[in-house]
Amino acid sequence: MAFTSLSLAFLFLVASHGCLAQLGQQQRQGMQLLGLRGTEQHRLRAKTDCGLQSINAREADHRIEAEGGITEIWDPKYNVEFWCAGVAAVRHVLQPKGLLLPSYTSAPQMGIQGTVIPGCPETYESVSQSREQEMQRIRDRHQKIRRIQEGDIIALPAGVAHWAYNDGDTPLICVALVDKANDANQLDLDLRRFYLAGNPKGQQQSLGRQEQEQRRRPSHKQNGNVFRGFDEQILAEVFNVDIETARRLQGRDERRGNIVLVERELQVISPQYQEEEWEREQEREHERGLNGLEETICTLRLRENIASPTRADVYNPRGGRVSTINSHNLPILDWVQLSAERGVLYRNAIMAPLWNVNAHSIIYILRGSGRIQIVGNSGKSMFDDHVKEGQFIVVPQNFAVIKKASGDGLEWIAFKTNGNAITSQLAGRVSAIRNMPEEVLMNSYDISRDKARNLKYNRDEMTVFSPQSRSQREG
Amino acid sequence: MAFTSLSLAFLFLVASHGCLAQLGQQQRQGMQLLGLRGTEQHRLRAKTDCGLQSINAREADHRIEAEGGITEIWDPKYNVEFWCAGVAAVRHVLQPKGLLLPSYTSAPQMGIQGTVIPGCPETYESVSQSREQEMQRIRDRHQKIRRIQEGDIIALPAGVAHWAYNDGDTPLICVALVDKANDANQLDLDLRRFYLAGNPKGQQQSLGRQEQEQRRRPSHKQNGNVFRGFDEQILAEVFNVDIETARRLQGRDERRGNIVLVERELQVISPQYQEEEWEREQEREHERGLNGLEETICTLRLRENIASPTRADVYNPRGGRVSTINSHNLPILDWVQLSAERGVLYRNAIMAPLWNVNAHSIIYILRGSGRIQIVGNSGKSMFDDHVKEGQFIVVPQNFAVIKKASGDGLEWIAFKTNGNAITSQLAGRVSAIRNMPEEVLMNSYDISRDKARNLKYNRDEMTVFSPQSRSQREG
Amino acid sequence: MAFTSLSLAFLFLVASHGCLAQLGQQQRQGMQLLGLRGTEQHRLRAKTDCGLQSINAREADHRIEAEGGITEIWDPKYNVEFWCAGVAAVRHVLQPKGLLLPSYTSAPQMGIQGTVIPGCPETYESVSQSREQEMQRIRDRHQKIRRIQEGDIIALPAGVAHWAYNDGDTPLICVALVDKANDANQLDLDLRRFYLAGNPKGQQQSLGRQEQEQRRRPSHKQNGNVFRGFDEQILAEVFNVDIETARRLQGRDERRGNIVLVERELQVISPQYQEEEWEREQEREHERGLNGLEETICTLRLRENIASPTRADVYNPRGGRVSTINSHNLPILDWVQLSAERGVLYRNAIMAPLWNVNAHSIIYILRGSGRIQIVGNSGKSMFDDHVKEGQFIVVPQNFAVIKKASGDGLEWIAFKTNGNAITSQLAGRVSAIRNMPEEVLMNSYDISRDKARNLKYNRDEMTVFSPQSRSQREG
Repeated sequence: MAFTSLSLAFLFLVASHGCLAQLGQQQRQGMQLLGLRGTEQHRLRAKTDCGLQSINAREADHRIEAEGGITEIWDPKYNVEFWCAGVAAVRHVLQPKGLLLPSYTSAPQMGIQGTVIPGCPETYESVSQSREQEMQRIRDRHQKIRRIQEGDIIALPAGVAHWAYNDGDTPLICVALVDKANDANQLDLDLRRFYLAGNPKGQQQSLGRQEQEQRRRPSHKQNGNVFRGFDEQILAEVFNVDIETARRLQGRDERRGNIVLVERELQVISPQYQEEEWEREQEREHERGLNGLEETICTLRLRENIASPTRADVYNPRGGRVSTINSHNLPILDWVQLSAERGVLYRNAIMAPLWNVNAHSIIYILRGSGRIQIVGNSGKSMFDDHVKEGQFIVVPQNFAVIKKASGDGLEWIAFKTNGNAITSQLAGRVSAIRNMPEEVLMNSYDISRDKARNLKYNRDEMTVFSPQSRSQREG
Repeated sequence: MAFTSLSLAFLFLVASHGCLAQLGQQQRQGMQLLGLRGTEQHRLRAKTDCGLQSINAREADHRIEAEGGITEIWDPKYNVEFWCAGVAAVRHVLQPKGLLLPSYTSAPQMGIQGTVIPGCPETYESVSQSREQEMQRIRDRHQKIRRIQEGDIIALPAGVAHWAYNDGDTPLICVALVDKANDANQLDLDLRRFYLAGNPKGQQQSLGRQEQEQRRRPSHKQNGNVFRGFDEQILAEVFNVDIETARRLQGRDERRGNIVLVERELQVISPQYQEEEWEREQEREHERGLNGLEETICTLRLRENIASPTRADVYNPRGGRVSTINSHNLPILDWVQLSAERGVLYRNAIMAPLWNVNAHSIIYILRGSGRIQIVGNSGKSMFDDHVKEGQFIVVPQNFAVIKKASGDGLEWIAFKTNGNAITSQLAGRVSAIRNMPEEVLMNSYDISRDKARNLKYNRDEMTVFSPQSRSQREG
Repeated sequence: MAFTSLSLAFLFLVASHGCLAQLGQQQRQGMQLLGLRGTEQHRLRAKTDCGLQSINAREADHRIEAEGGITEIWDPKYNVEFWCAGVAAVRHVLQPKGLLLPSYTSAPQMGIQGTVIPGCPETYESVSQSREQEMQRIRDRHQKIRRIQEGDIIALPAGVAHWAYNDGDTPLICVALVDKANDANQLDLDLRRFYLAGNPKGQQQSLGRQEQEQRRRPSHKQNGNVFRGFDEQILAEVFNVDIETARRLQGRDERRGNIVLVERELQVISPQYQEEEWEREQEREHERGLNGLEETICTLRLRENIASPTRADVYNPRGGRVSTINSHNLPILDWVQLSAERGVLYRNAIMAPLWNVNAHSIIYILRGSGRIQIVGNSGKSMFDDHVKEGQFIVVPQNFAVIKKASGDGLEWIAFKTNGNAITSQLAGRVSAIRNMPEEVLMNSYDISRDKARNLKYNRDEMTVFSPQSRSQREG
């Protein structure tokens, strides 16, 4: 499995105009007036311990095949770590010309490489000059179109419709975390996706590797097209169209699944058109960034690319780099209360042992392999094994973790259940050990002053540690 | 059942002075200082799916008869929709001269026509010149009195005492939603009402229509007078009164129930006095509205009237109107995290199909009748039936809903579990369908370009749709 | 058991530098930029009633003996009130020279007299001139050191490491509430303490007095040293030290428990050094208080002393006094969403009957004894008994409570589960009864106008009532 590196994906935003615009304005105006915040976050906690005895690296639990691609699902009903963290995950593989049908979910999502794109209330008037229509210059009003590039991280509030299209010539892979325990989800922990088209159930297959862990019936099976539950007569009246069109809305005879193949290239995203559009949008986003108070949900930036090495927050030429994205550099994350970290470890390098102070960390391995160790409050090992590309692994809040790259390096994205996730390191230049007085270390660990100094100062790197030969270490 | 249209109700506020004033000031000062918010919201979510298989329009589950009126209760322990949404509802019918005894609840409420009124810390000095006391000019200090008119929407934080009195000559009907899953309720989902007087249990009758759905014993049965649980000797010492008065506080021999009849008209609310008071209050509220930052909980407006057609946010002369109330026009709603919508559909008109993005919607039918269809993420119909005056119906977050008035029109109030509830429409001028490019519609629904344009443009109205004769529709 | 009144405790802060500093800054910058709040709170509510039939005053459920002191735990799995309120409590008794090993917990805490101290990201460079090192002037960098005095109230966010040391010559007693249902705790309601040293399990003993109430296995038993779950080879590599030192980190052969005895006095807290440090710190904190917007988590004040009579918010020379600490006078409490009240009742004095509007109140009896009555919404007595030094008692949100001191007076600290907890009083000068018009009282309680006036005006004190002889009362 490889991320298609140069394939561009164009993604279009779908939502109703007035209502969401209202949201943004109310929020901002409320803030200006009263300094209040209109939205809140919260995570579900189990009433008692959530039954976490050990942690596993996880492959997908379900696989749904459709005409234009494949959807894989990590289902919390099938694995206890996702259950405890209150999250699910989805991976879509869109074939070239694959169109993921419009839908919305009952929980916020955060994805990499354009998985899910929030609809935006901003009506976007543009001229679509398709070849066969050049003479007609038909004006098609629609919403702003956002183009996604590899490494883009995208945040998507709950209940906002979106669709995606792969206009590249290689498969497009999108991975998204669905934060079901997020306060924005008011109903229950079912993964509820509401499709606006098709008959999306497709050919589902439960992969059954973790069958012994299944606790409840999977609920995502039920996700269907909401038009289907309405009376076709009323739909025809509502849209003021004929019954046949109303039936098409309902997707009654549809067999293509949730990802369909587009016969001709979508004209509205012809490269000439998009390229200049995209430039202008980038400019606008930049301008808005300078003027945060006037942003609404529509104009809020929804993506940030942290793939580039120049974007790293921590860089160690002998070890690797770490980049973070949070509400500080992508303000919408304060609203959806998610953040992310992208890490790259070179051959045999080590990520400083640390704990997540205020968030769960849900790690997806993007490339390479390595060894991860996780320890809980019992002081016992919860996980100590190799991980590889395509696996998810959950590190619960406050659990301590060490990552070590194998010979081919290790690259990951960690989704975090807090808009400003913070970590506390156990070793290195900014660690808890470094910050304690020598005498406390001496007495806590029953060691000499020299040994205490070794503990504090022998590893002078920060966050990303280079591999050390054993001979380098002092006795 | 009819709403008494010109009966004015006078409502008085009961709460302790220093403490709540403190609340308001702390909150505001905190905001000024740090930009922080002192209160939060959250909704309970079931750990797994909350068992919602279908939705029903609901009559009350319990009925309590008292000397001065009747209280009806929609109990989440008796119906699954209220359970899933984490709410309960109450309808009081106060006979003329009926006094609803002082009480407070453990969850915030939002009501129409003066159901529940928050006590306010502001001590209110006024001269009550009752006829028999004219010579004495006894000064009775008490709190601000708020008069309620038909159509007033009132918000009431948790734990704030209130009482109500009907000084009209027709019954006063008050309907309130109790948001038990609101974060302000810290204990559990029981409907806890704490009375400060009487022996409020009255003659309760479980209506038993939904007996088969009863899941747990009703808890509201237990609601009593808190003075009753204290030792009468200590009460006498605390108030420095005789034992007989302490026993009266406890309502030991009381048989009038939670609504009592006042023998003579309450003097403090004589029309002459009240009228001018009310004018002054209106002015003060208006001034305060201009200066939001200095408001405290006492001076915060707690009501807004959205019954008037001139107040409509959306108005279609051929269809009807919709008015909304949220934290933008009533700032206290940011604190209690509830909002409301009042809708009026003329004969056979249709409310645009839509979903609630960030809230549950709990609809009470005020007048008329109509047909409602609700669809969940499964794509199956959850409800498709007629509704009529006096019924409640729950539309869970993200579920799609269509309302269609019958021949006598349809009028409702929808309470929403978010201070800034927003909706996303599926058809009409500001809809998700309108905002998608034609080519996405063509491919998603497998239809021609012409059909896609019909879907987007045939219904050009917004939110409220006029009835359309079948002949108007294009094939 | 006595609080050691003049023993000073020095507490040191342990945390990683960059990450937490980042937190503070992001939060503040976020607020400045958008007026948004970066953190939220929420309390767990049981899905249905939490099973509270009565309330008891509670001694500790578990006792853990260690070399340098004793730890006692109030475990919500053993008593229903703590369970319903979503809290646990801890009492440490540190012998002179006792060092509580570094640890962090998965929920915020609030403690009195230096129980738990938040680590702070601010690296603190200081010169430790121990006697044997005078010539060397070894510079030991560590974090800011906070000295704790009797009566200090300390707030500690979740996931922040801390340790404590008793440099006095009498035992140091620290009592802390752990707010497990706080939103900052994302995992479950287990009391998770993560030690960074030792083999802290010690000699635990379940006191078994409430055995019949045990609902689940105690989870705190499992709390261990997180280093222990890592591979010792990897630890050696990470810290770049020898295997022997890595094993010391893991505390493999450790038998001293969670509180160890320091052989020589910790030099870093020599009185000369500390005294001047402390003065400077006080000044800095004061300056920061004037300039709230620039504070970060490190520089935020974490403590406030409310023991002094001059600090009282309410003072009645014939009754006693009450002091409160909330986010208004200690801004970090807006973040951890806890507050506290310290009360002193003189011989036979009475605390006004009241209910907590927006919080649970978890009371710890510091000194003396008295009688407490608690009433729930059922109108029945939930608790009516004597309480004494060292007991905890929970008053759930909205439940009414009266406290009356016995002949030796009563002193308590009440921890409250809201950053700005407010109360509503039932009697006295600022009470709900006082704020209702006479005629409402007359009709609600079926009493004469004179009796209604007695109820309103006979007790003119506020909050703290002096004892009244029966002869003083009017009939």
